Amino acid sequence: MDENIETAPELQVSEWINTEHAITLKSLRGRVVVLHAFQMLCPGCVQHGIPQATKIHNAFDRKDLVALGLHTVFEHHAVMGAEALRVFMHEYRIPFPVGVDAALAGSDVPLTMQTYGLRGTPSLIVIDRNGYVRLNHFGQVDDLRIGAVLGQLVAEQVRTPASR
Amino acid sequence: MDENIETAPELQVSEWINTEHAITLKSLRGRVVVLHAFQMLCPGCVQHGIPQATKIHNAFDRKDLVALGLHTVFEHHAVMGAEALRVFMHEYRIPFPVGVDAALAGSDVPLTMQTYGLRGTPSLIVIDRNGYVRLNHFGQVDDLRIGAVLGQLVAEQVRTPASR
Amino acid sequence: MDENIETAPELQVSEWINTEHAITLKSLRGRVVVLHAFQMLCPGCVQHGIPQATKIHNAFDRKDLVALGLHTVFEHHAVMGAEALRVFMHEYRIPFPVGVDAALAGSDVPLTMQTYGLRGTPSLIVIDRNGYVRLNHFGQVDDLRIGAVLGQLVAEQVRTPASR
Amino acid sequence: MDENIETAPELQVSEWINTEHAITLKSLRGRVVVLHAFQMLCPGCVQHGIPQATKIHNAFDRKDLVALGLHTVFEHHAVMGAEALRVFMHEYRIPFPVGVDAALAGSDVPLTMQTYGLRGTPSLIVIDRNGYVRLNHFGQVDDLRIGAVLGQLVAEQVRTPASR
Repeated sequence: MDENIETAPELQVSEWINTEHAITLKSLRGRVVVLHAFQMLCPGCVQHGIPQATKIHNAFDRKDLVALGLHTVFEHHAVMGAEALRVFMHEYRIPFPVGVDAALAGSDVPLTMQTYGLRGTPSLIVIDRNGYVRLNHFGQVDDLRIGAVLGQLVAEQVRTPASR
Repeated sequence: MDENIETAPELQVSEWINTEHAITLKSLRGRVVVLHAFQMLCPGCVQHGIPQATKIHNAFDRKDLVALGLHTVFEHHAVMGAEALRVFMHEYRIPFPVGVDAALAGSDVPLTMQTYGLRGTPSLIVIDRNGYVRLNHFGQVDDLRIGAVLGQLVAEQVRTPASR
Repeated sequence: MDENIETAPELQVSEWINTEHAITLKSLRGRVVVLHAFQMLCPGCVQHGIPQATKIHNAFDRKDLVALGLHTVFEHHAVMGAEALRVFMHEYRIPFPVGVDAALAGSDVPLTMQTYGLRGTPSLIVIDRNGYVRLNHFGQVDDLRIGAVLGQLVAEQVRTPASR
Repeated sequence: MDENIETAPELQVSEWINTEHAITLKSLRGRVVVLHAFQMLCPGCVQHGIPQATKIHNAFDRKDLVALGLHTVFEHHAVMGAEALRVFMHEYRIPFPVGVDAALAGSDVPLTMQTYGLRGTPSLIVIDRNGYVRLNHFGQVDDLRIGAVLGQLVAEQVRTPASR
């Protein structure tokens, strides 16, 4: 693996939904993490990204891979707040935890979205067992291709500190 | 035609979007009217009802048939107000006028929804050239079948008062 | 209606499948006839045309509209004969009668296909209650639009000889 | 890996299409092999299995994974011979090699189909880099799930004889 690959920056989340405890990437080290960045009123997210994230959530053992949503609102903030998001998640039966990307004072673009350099929604970020960002994709990805990528990452070993 | 068929009650709308002037059924007498009742956070509406209403809007001459949306919010009112609806309509590129069903004090169910006895969303109401309700359907309808119904209604004559 | 519209030429069929008696357009005068011209190994026919023709067959009263298939083989004749077609129709559960377009000695293109000037498969021909060709379309047609066309034709009156 | 997993029996093929040389599983040892067993007039194969096998063919590096078709005709033999199959493959633009499962005198079920105990079509057989059968599935499989399985198998090492 290319040693220049970026270690995934920690998520900046103001509120978590569908989980009892706040989630950190650090606590998930050792597992593959799939981060689906979306906005609840984005048609491409609703039609493609969220159904795919749900399939990913259902296809893997939680010990190997964890799917998370990240609500990266960068427009129309007034109507996509946490209360609206909770209704949306209930109506669409979203089964995985979703974090609300933290606002940055003076900017429309929230913090995690900026840190990861996301270009819009839907975006898919894949982090390997060792905490490296292996995919950061804007737009749609085919189910079979993302399945293949995730299967390969799940098969990778966790590297021990000594092996680096 | 069965003379007992109900004349369509007038719409009770608090606000119209995508149209310069308020719309009344009375002003559309002589044309077929297709009323798509929906909620912006209802998955069946987003996945099936709204795309079908858009196809109907595009398939017919406006002189023969007019497609209208009716935002019949009966739950989660706080997050499906007119401002949120305007964003939703912009993001989903909805091309036809949509009326906000008027609230009824003390009830979660808005006025037009009650008058028409709608059971939920999506619902499809079809009104003929003479102002009679010819279809009031809860749930999905196949594109080919609704096309056939509308084609037949478009082919019907407007009845003159004397002929009644 | 434009008086120059062409009267539908009679079908030239060497064999009928899914019907006890040979079918003529003349015997169907008074009803709308939908003719789906296809080849059993044509992907567009299998994926779009045949499912649509089946929906049409199921959506209308047989007294108003009859759906027919026409197997217009113009290539690979050796592997799309009547025996292969019967297996295909069985496997795909085709519910409407299908006629085998009659071969023309010395030509790859069968007789009815030539008479109607079809450009390929799938093609959709629609004949009204009075026997006039109202649509002759090569390629796909949207379900809602063809439903609307057929609904309008079903609503038309049969003209008596005197009214012509 | 379970040492009781079956080594994949060699394919019994009477004719190969879309390849210059006959293909053996033995020659593909070291790569993952996906075998899509189908019949050209089986609707489930045409609508689901063949598009999925094509996606698999396109998603992986041929050095890691090879997709093959196997035409396992067990009914209607007269109309699904090699000549008809060649036309079918041409019309459906099938990009991977397809082998015709060898007939067994006195049986409707061909040889490889019997050896692998296939229950019908479509069936999906997945063989790992070491030649073991890891999946033998009758019916449809979701794109994301099969992608995940294949990704994991591609990530596995070839075992050297000494390591067994």
